[in-house]
Amino acid sequence: MTDQLILRDEPVPGVIRLTLNRPDAFNSLSEEMLAALLNELARLAESPDIKVVILAAAGKAFCAGHDLKQMRAQPSLEYYEGLFGQCSEVMLAIQRIPQIVIAQVQGIATAAGCQLVAMCDLAVSSNQARFAVSGVNLGLFCSTPSVALSRNLSRKQAMYMLVTGEFISAEQARDWGLINEVCGPEELEDITLDLARKITPKPGVALALGKRLFYEQVETSIQHAYELAGKTMACNMMDESALEGVQAFIEKRKPDWK
Amino acid sequence: MTDQLILRDEPVPGVIRLTLNRPDAFNSLSEEMLAALLNELARLAESPDIKVVILAAAGKAFCAGHDLKQMRAQPSLEYYEGLFGQCSEVMLAIQRIPQIVIAQVQGIATAAGCQLVAMCDLAVSSNQARFAVSGVNLGLFCSTPSVALSRNLSRKQAMYMLVTGEFISAEQARDWGLINEVCGPEELEDITLDLARKITPKPGVALALGKRLFYEQVETSIQHAYELAGKTMACNMMDESALEGVQAFIEKRKPDWK
Amino acid sequence: MTDQLILRDEPVPGVIRLTLNRPDAFNSLSEEMLAALLNELARLAESPDIKVVILAAAGKAFCAGHDLKQMRAQPSLEYYEGLFGQCSEVMLAIQRIPQIVIAQVQGIATAAGCQLVAMCDLAVSSNQARFAVSGVNLGLFCSTPSVALSRNLSRKQAMYMLVTGEFISAEQARDWGLINEVCGPEELEDITLDLARKITPKPGVALALGKRLFYEQVETSIQHAYELAGKTMACNMMDESALEGVQAFIEKRKPDWK
Repeated sequence: MTDQLILRDEPVPGVIRLTLNRPDAFNSLSEEMLAALLNELARLAESPDIKVVILAAAGKAFCAGHDLKQMRAQPSLEYYEGLFGQCSEVMLAIQRIPQIVIAQVQGIATAAGCQLVAMCDLAVSSNQARFAVSGVNLGLFCSTPSVALSRNLSRKQAMYMLVTGEFISAEQARDWGLINEVCGPEELEDITLDLARKITPKPGVALALGKRLFYEQVETSIQHAYELAGKTMACNMMDESALEGVQAFIEKRKPDWK
Repeated sequence: MTDQLILRDEPVPGVIRLTLNRPDAFNSLSEEMLAALLNELARLAESPDIKVVILAAAGKAFCAGHDLKQMRAQPSLEYYEGLFGQCSEVMLAIQRIPQIVIAQVQGIATAAGCQLVAMCDLAVSSNQARFAVSGVNLGLFCSTPSVALSRNLSRKQAMYMLVTGEFISAEQARDWGLINEVCGPEELEDITLDLARKITPKPGVALALGKRLFYEQVETSIQHAYELAGKTMACNMMDESALEGVQAFIEKRKPDWK
Repeated sequence: MTDQLILRDEPVPGVIRLTLNRPDAFNSLSEEMLAALLNELARLAESPDIKVVILAAAGKAFCAGHDLKQMRAQPSLEYYEGLFGQCSEVMLAIQRIPQIVIAQVQGIATAAGCQLVAMCDLAVSSNQARFAVSGVNLGLFCSTPSVALSRNLSRKQAMYMLVTGEFISAEQARDWGLINEVCGPEELEDITLDLARKITPKPGVALALGKRLFYEQVETSIQHAYELAGKTMACNMMDESALEGVQAFIEKRKPDWK
């Protein structure tokens, strides 16, 4: 089991936890790790009973970004284009699967590791964790992480991190919009599960339709966004879980969802 | 008068206050309420002497979103598409009228009620008010509210509210960008009027051109945004109120605006 | 030297400081000042050895916006369209040059002066500085500044400044995302240079590629953004400075960059 690059368990019904399990390499995103992650995400895309995914990590670091040794060993443009393309596919899959994805960050999250946190729908962090997009220190600007970072932080905050490569604290990350909640390291798992448990009782149809619409509409004009959202809500309302949920609300009782 | 769904008064010259007046139903947005609101906004679009609109509410709640009883009674896709289309028309009208619209939030603002606050240009809130997009609790993800919410809050903050359905406080709403100012409930009316009074002395042409440009340019590339904005400013500068305002500034006197 | 509209020095190797030098006119952006600034920025576009530009100002004010006297003297639509077009060209040049541009704000920054700060990649401010988009007070809504402001602040915060014309403090500006760091006026120069010194050791290729990609990708869909970013990173990785930087990291030594 511990030989696997990604551990998978279901700590709470309806919640799958994926644990990056390459602690000696700071869970860096080798090609194999990216492939394993993409495989797990593809499996989740076909798992309608799962409502929440927790992305956790083993060891001291959450994720230190790409596997630089592996990357340096193959210095060709084609290889790098393929590698960053593969990595972007993983990042986009996080946004595309129907589940709500929560990052559970226990240690440093740097470069593509920081990007992973930014791409998750929600994030909980230990107050010991720190965040950086530090590629620039090696002469490699974190361009792909900047896609995710600039969709979480304001421009000057993102630019500060990108050009200085400096670490920010978990509290700073929360105040800037990268993290939802910060807690002590000993509570991290419980608080992340508590957040997951707030989501699992909701109908999966509503979560899946809503998440898809959310990321679709932020990219378009407000007029078109409302057209898409109106259709999504009408469609959501026709689902039996919503019809029952609204009926239960009117009758002041709990919904009877199977 | 109290039979009307929306009360209308002019508490300060140049300021129209629209008060949602269905307190027993938590000012929920029935078809009739949406039609009445759209009608008032259409009237304002033709009222160049009015510079500010205050959107207030009677009773304990600001607005609890759609009228779920009415909505549940007509379970058809066509009906729901029509209803959400009508609601979106109201929301977009707030952004399209030439006046600056201030939400005055005295109690809970949930689902489409929270969306109303997000769509206003500015918002003042009582420290007793609370905000949620709680449709997900009934199995109906707040997709149309997410359009407005995601244009006010950062992604992770918006997503947190949308998938948990939890309430946030007025202070949290202010820190996240949904609200401009929070005050005690007994000062709410005065502080909102004070804000309106800061705006009414400005020429209506400047406010109307500026507001229209603001929402147009945020949706386009920065290059195109500057082209649009440059034309708007040139046009604004040619208006006699701006020529007089700038001349008065040069002569160190107050502008003589009729 | 003091007759020049813009002073130019190199306080640290690799850092060019441009100082707006029209203190008696609050460094207002006359046609001549805009032309001088555009000229300096064009020169920097051809200076690959320079990595950071500091935009500073002489006297009590940072910049009070357009030169209203000059502007008022030529009341024609053609003139104004030309003037705002010229100003937008300067603003866009700040974003287009390969260097990281830091605003060093020592006094009031109003209208197009506030816009200048918003367009810089980073900004450091004295705690005595204040910020406003006050054109609306003269009947001239700050439409072109709103392009920059709305790309730094949340919508309601930007709208508040634009329709009231009120000043905000440096601390408020930092909390809203317009400024990275606030300090005492006596430390302003040193703290700005410290920030510049964090950036100058990084390879120029990484900074230039990364900055260009950053502003390109924020304007497009996340899918397309990742395509652009992946190509940029692959290209960046093939540069000898990145190959050496990554190799040095693997060997746990400092990169040997000439």
